[in-house]
Amino acid sequence: MSDWLDQIKWTEDGLVPAIAQEHGSGRVLMFAWMNRESLQLTVQSGKAVYWSRSRGKLWRKGEASGHEQIVHELRLDCDNDVILLEIEQKGGIACHTGRHSCFYQQYQDGRWQTVEPVLKNPEEIYKS
Amino acid sequence: MSDWLDQIKWTEDGLVPAIAQEHGSGRVLMFAWMNRESLQLTVQSGKAVYWSRSRGKLWRKGEASGHEQIVHELRLDCDNDVILLEIEQKGGIACHTGRHSCFYQQYQDGRWQTVEPVLKNPEEIYKS
Repeated sequence: MSDWLDQIKWTEDGLVPAIAQEHGSGRVLMFAWMNRESLQLTVQSGKAVYWSRSRGKLWRKGEASGHEQIVHELRLDCDNDVILLEIEQKGGIACHTGRHSCFYQQYQDGRWQTVEPVLKNPEEIYKS
Repeated sequence: MSDWLDQIKWTEDGLVPAIAQEHGSGRVLMFAWMNRESLQLTVQSGKAVYWSRSRGKLWRKGEASGHEQIVHELRLDCDNDVILLEIEQKGGIACHTGRHSCFYQQYQDGRWQTVEPVLKNPEEIYKS
């Protein structure tokens, strides 16, 4: 049964936007895209799997960094074209810059100001 | 000065995805798109203005329903291509179905289950 996948209004490219929100804190940590396979894998594995548009392949979040996202809940919006994930962020770092959230730039008087610290050096995160 | 607008990586269609999160509750209420003009108007007016892709025009949130969104904070993500708005939701209803949040369908055992009540009949909301 994959009716639940058929109900989603995929883009022409077969994608759906996905918002990852942290369980507990409620912080919005990142925004990414999913295709049919990545959403199916997300449900099956209980861990967030996205579709990397830049790399053109499945992106198992945390595969390089260890910063996996354990899925607590999946929601779909009223137009069936946006996914909201409630996740537990392993390592407390969602962003490739080493920050907790990707949304670390705040609008202040005509500019984007960085308002959150780097928790871990990306070179350390991504060393293999 | 519009450097802050130039810093945004707009799509080929001149849009940027926007996530509206409720001040206080932290609930993600809706997802929409903005173009340059709508983002500028959002900052100028302090109220969320989106770009309606279906109608092909500016969408001053609440213009028909009265359910305006007062902007408390604007954030930009690490790739400069997603906006996060912290908003106060007037009337407590963001969704055109009359629900608090657009994300009212929860994944449960292979289907999307509606888990949030309609707070106000849409016919009442949109009567002119």
